[in-house]
Amino acid sequence: MLRKGATGKPLTTKETKELGFDYIKSFINYGSPAGMPNWGTFGALSAGDIDLMTRYLLNEPAVPPEFGMKEVRASWKVIVPPDKRPTKKMNDLDIDNLFSVTLRDSGDIALIDGHNYKIQTIIKTGYAVHISRISASGRYLMVIGRDALINMIDLWMKTPQTVASIKIGMEARSVETSKTKGWEDRYAIAGAYWPPQFVIMDGATLEPIKIVSTRGMTVDTQEYHPEPRVAAIVGSHYRPEFVVNVKETGKILLVNYEDVRNLKITSIDAERFLHDGGLDSTGRYFIVAANARNTIGVVDTKEGKLVKLIREDDGVGTTPHPGRGANFVHPKYGPVWATSHLGDETVALIGTDPKGHPEHAWKVVQSLEARGGGSLFVKTHPKSKNLWVDSPLNPEAEIASSVAVFDITQPDKPFEVVPIGEMSGISEGTRRVVQGEYNKAGTEIWFSVWNGKDQESAIVVIDDKTRKLKKVIKDPRLITPTGKFNVYNTREDVY
Amino acid sequence: MLRKGATGKPLTTKETKELGFDYIKSFINYGSPAGMPNWGTFGALSAGDIDLMTRYLLNEPAVPPEFGMKEVRASWKVIVPPDKRPTKKMNDLDIDNLFSVTLRDSGDIALIDGHNYKIQTIIKTGYAVHISRISASGRYLMVIGRDALINMIDLWMKTPQTVASIKIGMEARSVETSKTKGWEDRYAIAGAYWPPQFVIMDGATLEPIKIVSTRGMTVDTQEYHPEPRVAAIVGSHYRPEFVVNVKETGKILLVNYEDVRNLKITSIDAERFLHDGGLDSTGRYFIVAANARNTIGVVDTKEGKLVKLIREDDGVGTTPHPGRGANFVHPKYGPVWATSHLGDETVALIGTDPKGHPEHAWKVVQSLEARGGGSLFVKTHPKSKNLWVDSPLNPEAEIASSVAVFDITQPDKPFEVVPIGEMSGISEGTRRVVQGEYNKAGTEIWFSVWNGKDQESAIVVIDDKTRKLKKVIKDPRLITPTGKFNVYNTREDVY
Repeated sequence: MLRKGATGKPLTTKETKELGFDYIKSFINYGSPAGMPNWGTFGALSAGDIDLMTRYLLNEPAVPPEFGMKEVRASWKVIVPPDKRPTKKMNDLDIDNLFSVTLRDSGDIALIDGHNYKIQTIIKTGYAVHISRISASGRYLMVIGRDALINMIDLWMKTPQTVASIKIGMEARSVETSKTKGWEDRYAIAGAYWPPQFVIMDGATLEPIKIVSTRGMTVDTQEYHPEPRVAAIVGSHYRPEFVVNVKETGKILLVNYEDVRNLKITSIDAERFLHDGGLDSTGRYFIVAANARNTIGVVDTKEGKLVKLIREDDGVGTTPHPGRGANFVHPKYGPVWATSHLGDETVALIGTDPKGHPEHAWKVVQSLEARGGGSLFVKTHPKSKNLWVDSPLNPEAEIASSVAVFDITQPDKPFEVVPIGEMSGISEGTRRVVQGEYNKAGTEIWFSVWNGKDQESAIVVIDDKTRKLKKVIKDPRLITPTGKFNVYNTREDVY
Repeated sequence: MLRKGATGKPLTTKETKELGFDYIKSFINYGSPAGMPNWGTFGALSAGDIDLMTRYLLNEPAVPPEFGMKEVRASWKVIVPPDKRPTKKMNDLDIDNLFSVTLRDSGDIALIDGHNYKIQTIIKTGYAVHISRISASGRYLMVIGRDALINMIDLWMKTPQTVASIKIGMEARSVETSKTKGWEDRYAIAGAYWPPQFVIMDGATLEPIKIVSTRGMTVDTQEYHPEPRVAAIVGSHYRPEFVVNVKETGKILLVNYEDVRNLKITSIDAERFLHDGGLDSTGRYFIVAANARNTIGVVDTKEGKLVKLIREDDGVGTTPHPGRGANFVHPKYGPVWATSHLGDETVALIGTDPKGHPEHAWKVVQSLEARGGGSLFVKTHPKSKNLWVDSPLNPEAEIASSVAVFDITQPDKPFEVVPIGEMSGISEGTRRVVQGEYNKAGTEIWFSVWNGKDQESAIVVIDDKTRKLKKVIKDPRLITPTGKFNVYNTREDVY
């Protein structure tokens, strides 16, 4: 909001005034080889738009308004109160094998049956929907848009629908629910980009309970940052805590929700530009990328402290982007957690078993070479022998539209390329292939073939064992599908 | 800094523009019956000054600059490093019975011997020195000025002197040291008014370790506050925690210093405008005034949570100002903690013994009537039968220059007036009498007779048993003495 940069460069007036009007205008029009799209010549922005945007960038960014409890509460809607909701499941869906699919540009999610591949329903959500999370009971699906709107969907209803909604800020990206034994479905939490804050809500109604600002000091220089955005939030299974990652300050907050009025937060000094991460296979360790610093941080959620910062010199690649990462048992190094990178072709495998394999713990034990940079997600499953690596943001269309798959029982063996885009039968567009997601049984992996919003997209289902095509899901309503969230795997943090 | 008001009214442009130039100018010149001094007719400000101040108030307050680690560290000076300091006490002072006396307008402290009443040394400190605190070992005296400068004074030196100093912000009021067993002298902490932050420092050198911003949401409306100032800080004897009071947001932070890199803070929702407070006689409970809300908050530092907010309806008076308060055993209600008020003549006695006297715990069990409003401090001592109540800000000179004393074995008995100002033998000035402080033995109480900086001031020592004059300490160097801090009583939280 204040254009101070994070993964990208800052665009404050210090930089823009130095570059000048003509330079910025050309830059927006023609793009750059480093990855800036050619907004003008590509036809996305008119000459007038570009002129306006250039002028905007040469002015001081206005400080956007606050969005405190008054505004949050005013946005809160309970569409179906708890006492009007069903007392048992009213449909014959196998909820655990449902997929909640983000339809990014239409601002919807599709609920797709994991057995018959049918779209059960399409539900209107926020703008540029980001992620789905499932309450610990498996009943409630929480979806958050980039506009900070949360939809809480009751999967027990005959046709699942939104039962409550709320806006927790003006821009956001993460939602989660309380998962620890005894606290199932009790609280929801969401983190905002603007204002820099997170909000704890009632898990049954989304009633806002507490707003906590994340403004504070950066971890390294200890200078005040006015806009430390909340990146990934993960609910611990281990302790009654949310793991909240604050991007610009580089702090990992363990927010204990046992007593919200006397809120206990452990603020762990990690590294700036925390983005996304996930739990190791035991659920004890939280592993997160500080992407613009080429660093992976490891937190022991049991002890409530930082274990290690694994850096470039230790073998982390350029701009790691793990999503939640992927856990498997390496034949040589024991349990590892994997991340691919936006900035290079490597997949870093990090040892996660300090007890059984102390010599490999929190080290990059192996770095696999996948197809190329621009990777967003890696995925495997406890039942699988495959590690799938996408590369949807790779500049080469052929790489962006296919995935690499490794045999994790023989990680040294070269990867196989699976041309998901081609398999979809779609011929138009870049056919970016993004985010593999397993079904509950771990026998299939689903990929999105993500095209422009006026183009055809699809979901391609691959048989995990044979790596062969099993099904292409197509539907005019499947507009810009990106993330897919299998209810069981998301809820249980199986990845 | 942003003129948003706290104890006083806000002076943002919303208010000032409505009042207008002429009104504000007259107001500053003539004062008001509600307590605004007549700065112009009193001679403190010239017509030009008042004109300038009026214009200033009609403009938006500028946001003052930050003061992060770079600035804090640049201000840090180690005058005598730990290895150059004496390894044993090099003087024959009875350190435990020294008094550190704030000389407010000269920016000094005087160290006065509690046995022979002699000024041992005068030490240059920050502007408008606020308080002194003693490290757990009793060796180091920490003094903080309103300009956020801390002086760390080594009392073991032949002549005690500053061995380290640091500025932790631009405006401040509180400093404290770690006191829990095993952590004695390990850390110092100081809280700033601007920037809104506290700083944890090494207890031997004042090297700054960690800065924590207090900016965040208010406790009631949960709206963002840009300037929540740090009021009182108390080091718990009970747990490795600092109790940090954040004024404008109304949150009491229990800052656990066991692991500063993974900092655990319990944020307790109390009430806005927290100011000052102290521990009960057991050290378990922290009792604090939210002064502009006429509320006393009670925190259980063992359980880390709010016990009670005691409000006006419960018998708290107008604008409580306890300092650290006063603990004694009431003949009828058992252990109580007392506070006087800025806004009225009452002294509220609050039961503090939920185990032995549950029916009186956290209730105003009695409200004594003292001389008048404008009281800043009450004081007693475990060895004493007296409760002393000052009233230095009372508009009547005679009340401002004397104190009320109650017999705590017979609290219903009317108070006696002790004319400290008169006893001092000073005839000029308002002779405001402020802040009783006991010697270590609890046999004497010292009061400051606080006059203007060009007038004579004094310290008057009263024999506690007889309530008679014992000694008047006068010295040309005793300029504007206010707070006095007996080393033992301050260190052990005896009050």
